[in-house]
Amino acid sequence: VVSVGDELLLGETVDTNGAWMARVLSEVGFAVVGRWVVGDEDQAIREAVEGALESTELVLVMGGLGPTPDDRTREAVADLLGVTLVPDPGLLEVLRGRMRGRGFGALPEGARAMARVPREGGILPNVVGAAPGLVMEGPHGRICLLLPGVPREMRTIVREEAVPYLRSRWRGRLRGAVHRTIHTFGIPESILQERVEGRLPPDRSGVSLAYLPDTLGVRLRLTARTEVESKDFPGEGPADGLEDPKEEALGRLRAVEALLEPVLAGHSYEAETGDLAEAVAEVLLQRRLTLGVAESCTGGLVAKRLTDVPGSSGFFMGGIVAYANEIKSRVLGIHSRIMEERGVVSEAVAAAMAEGVARALGTRVGIGVTGIAGPEGGTPEKPVGTVCFAIALPEGTTTRREWFPGDRKDVRERSAQAALGLLLRLLEREGS
Amino acid sequence: VVSVGDELLLGETVDTNGAWMARVLSEVGFAVVGRWVVGDEDQAIREAVEGALESTELVLVMGGLGPTPDDRTREAVADLLGVTLVPDPGLLEVLRGRMRGRGFGALPEGARAMARVPREGGILPNVVGAAPGLVMEGPHGRICLLLPGVPREMRTIVREEAVPYLRSRWRGRLRGAVHRTIHTFGIPESILQERVEGRLPPDRSGVSLAYLPDTLGVRLRLTARTEVESKDFPGEGPADGLEDPKEEALGRLRAVEALLEPVLAGHSYEAETGDLAEAVAEVLLQRRLTLGVAESCTGGLVAKRLTDVPGSSGFFMGGIVAYANEIKSRVLGIHSRIMEERGVVSEAVAAAMAEGVARALGTRVGIGVTGIAGPEGGTPEKPVGTVCFAIALPEGTTTRREWFPGDRKDVRERSAQAALGLLLRLLEREGS
Repeated sequence: VVSVGDELLLGETVDTNGAWMARVLSEVGFAVVGRWVVGDEDQAIREAVEGALESTELVLVMGGLGPTPDDRTREAVADLLGVTLVPDPGLLEVLRGRMRGRGFGALPEGARAMARVPREGGILPNVVGAAPGLVMEGPHGRICLLLPGVPREMRTIVREEAVPYLRSRWRGRLRGAVHRTIHTFGIPESILQERVEGRLPPDRSGVSLAYLPDTLGVRLRLTARTEVESKDFPGEGPADGLEDPKEEALGRLRAVEALLEPVLAGHSYEAETGDLAEAVAEVLLQRRLTLGVAESCTGGLVAKRLTDVPGSSGFFMGGIVAYANEIKSRVLGIHSRIMEERGVVSEAVAAAMAEGVARALGTRVGIGVTGIAGPEGGTPEKPVGTVCFAIALPEGTTTRREWFPGDRKDVRERSAQAALGLLLRLLEREGS
Repeated sequence: VVSVGDELLLGETVDTNGAWMARVLSEVGFAVVGRWVVGDEDQAIREAVEGALESTELVLVMGGLGPTPDDRTREAVADLLGVTLVPDPGLLEVLRGRMRGRGFGALPEGARAMARVPREGGILPNVVGAAPGLVMEGPHGRICLLLPGVPREMRTIVREEAVPYLRSRWRGRLRGAVHRTIHTFGIPESILQERVEGRLPPDRSGVSLAYLPDTLGVRLRLTARTEVESKDFPGEGPADGLEDPKEEALGRLRAVEALLEPVLAGHSYEAETGDLAEAVAEVLLQRRLTLGVAESCTGGLVAKRLTDVPGSSGFFMGGIVAYANEIKSRVLGIHSRIMEERGVVSEAVAAAMAEGVARALGTRVGIGVTGIAGPEGGTPEKPVGTVCFAIALPEGTTTRREWFPGDRKDVRERSAQAALGLLLRLLEREGS
C-alpha cells in the first residue's frame, strides 16, 4: 500500500487512508506486507511502486491523481510499467458537466489529465468525485491499482469497484476471514478487556480480538480465519458436501459472541455504519416515536448526529440549540428561577429542556443536554466536562449527571454519545 | 522514518507517530524522503531499514522495543548493522526499581531485553517509560535511531534527547523551511490552480505550492526553504550583519502571498485551526454581532460548527433545527403559503428562516439553510444537492441557491460551509 503526497510525507496530514486500505485488504484475504508514504515526485513514486512490486502481486497507490501539476501518480506509474495513457472522451464529458454544474466555465487544461486512462481499459468509476481509479498491469501479471487520495472518493471506489474486482481476479487464492464488530459505549477499554477475557476460554475458540478505542466508545473486533478460501459470493454453497469454511468460522465467531452477550448488555449496539445514532433511529422509527432535541453545550451536535441518518425525517421533528440562557427561557419556557436555584448545568434544567422541547415541537420524546464543554466556565463543584442530560418519554423523564475527560471537542462528542446511549437503553427497556 | 508494528501495518492503529516524526524532522531541517510501515518481523524490519539507509543518512525506527516476544526491532537492526548489544547494569537497576514501584515483584525475563544497549554507547534516556532510545551507527557514518512506539515516550525522548543530538551531529548542514497555509472555499481545485499559476512568475520566487483538497475547500500550502541553516536556538541572531536565512525565506513567502491576494479575494480566510467557522466567529466577536441559525437539511451542523469554536457563547445565541415543515411554521413563524407557493426548498423560505430565527431569538444576524441532502426527496427541477441559503443582516437579507455534488454527508457539509462562507463575505464587505 503506497500513499502519495507531500502533506502525508511531511506529516501535515495523517495517513488514515493507508490504515483503512490495509484493514480492507486484510479483510478481503490479502496478506499486507508493507506500507509506504512518499512525496509528490515521479522518482519517489516509481521507486516505492517498483520496490513493492518486487515482493507482492498487488500494489495499491493512493493520491496524486488530481488536476494540479503536483499530481504525479498517474504518469509516474504508467511510465514505470510501460502503460500508454489516452484521453477518455466519455470521462472528459463527465468532467465538463461537473464543472458546468458548479457554475464554472470551461474545463481547465490541468483537469483534462484526470480523463487520461490506460489504453487497455481498467477504469474504476468515481461516482462521488472527478478522478476515477485506474488498473495498470505490470510484469508477471502483477497489478497496480491507482486511487484518488480524497478519503470519501477512495473509499467509495474501493467498496463499489475495487473489492469486487480484486475478489474476482484473485479468485480461489484468498484466505478468507469473517469479522464481527461489536460497538460498545460507556465502558472504558481496560474494564471491557477484563470482562471479555474473563468470559472466554484460553484458546478463544480460535477467534482473535482487537480493541479499537475512540472518543465515542470501544469497538471490539472479532476475527475468525478460514483454513481455505471462503465463498466470495453469497448463494454459492459448498458443491461436494464439504462444510463451507466460512460457515465453520462464522460458527466459532457466533459462539464467542454468545459468550460475551451477558457482559456487554446495556453497553453495546448494532449499526451498519457503526453509528449509535443509526441504532437509535431504527428503534424510534420502528416504535413510531417522534423526537425533539434541546441542546446547550453540544450546540447542535445531537441534532446533527441524528439527521446524519438517511430517513431521519421519519422521526426527527426538530431541535432547539438554546446556547444563551435567555433562549432557554424564551423558546423552551424554562423558568429563570430553576436556572438560578439549581444552576444552568443541573439535572433539573436538563429535564426542563427535554420536556420543554417535546412540548414546543409537539413530539413524544425529548432530549435535553446542558453542560460545560470548556475551555472556560468550570467551577470547583462543576468542573469543565460536567454534563447533565435528560430523556423525556411519555412514561416520565430520566436524568443523568456525568463528568467527561478531554478537551472541548471530546466533551461535546462524549456528551452527544452519552445522551443517545441513554435514550437507546431506555427505549430498549421500555420495548422489552 | 520506519514505524514497526502489526497493528500499524494492518491498519488497526493509525500511524500518528510517523506523521509527527516527519513533521519534527522537517522542521529541524531534514528532507524526509520516505516513510515505511512494517510488521513485527525481523526480516521486514531489516529490509525496510536497509532500503532506507541506501538513500539517506539518517533512519528513525519507532516501535518494537518493548518486553514481549513480538518486540523485534532492537535485535533486528543491531543484527543488520553488526552492532553488539550488551546489558547495561545501571538500566537494569532502573527497570527493577520501576517494577517494584508499581507493586510487582522480580523483573520478568522479557523485560531484561529492554536493558540491552549498543556496546559503543548511544543511549537516549527515557524518563517517562521503560525502554530507552538507542543510537546505532551503520556503514559510512549513517545513523539509525531507535525509539519506543508509545507516543508519549517517543515524543519526550525526541524533544529532550534526539533533537539536540541530531542538531549537533548535523550542525551546519540543516536547511530550514517556512510554511504558510491559505484556506480557500467555494472554488474548485483546478480553477484555483489556473488562477494561482496565472499570477505567479515562472520561478514562483523559489516558493513551492501544494494544493490540498477536501470536501470543505482547498488548502494552498506555500513552502520556502532557506538556503543555509537557520538559527536553531531563539535569541541567536545573525552575528555578523548577515541576514537571517529564515527572514529571507519568509520575505519570499510574503511576496507570493501578496501576489495571490487579488485572485483569492472572497474565497480565502485566516484561521489557526483551519476552520472557516473560526474566521466567522472572529469577525462576529469583533463587530459585536449576535447570531441565530435556522437549519433544515443541515440538521444542526451549522450550529455545531459555530459552537465548535471556544468562546462562541460571545456571539452565538442559539439555533432552531426546523426539520419538519410544521416546525418551520410553529417556531419560525413561516407562513405555510410561502412554503406551498415557492416550495420548502426555495430562496424565499431560506430568507424567511433567516429572518424568522433572528426575530425569534432576538439576534442581529440570522442564517437560514434549506435543501435536499438526499438520498430521497429530489425532483427534476430540484435534484438532490439543491440547497438554498440566506443571511439576514440588519442591512437586509441576501439569498443564494446552489447545487452541490456528492452524497448526503457531502451535501450537508458543503451546505454548511457555503452558508458560513457567504456570511463571511458579506461581513467583510460590510466591514470594508
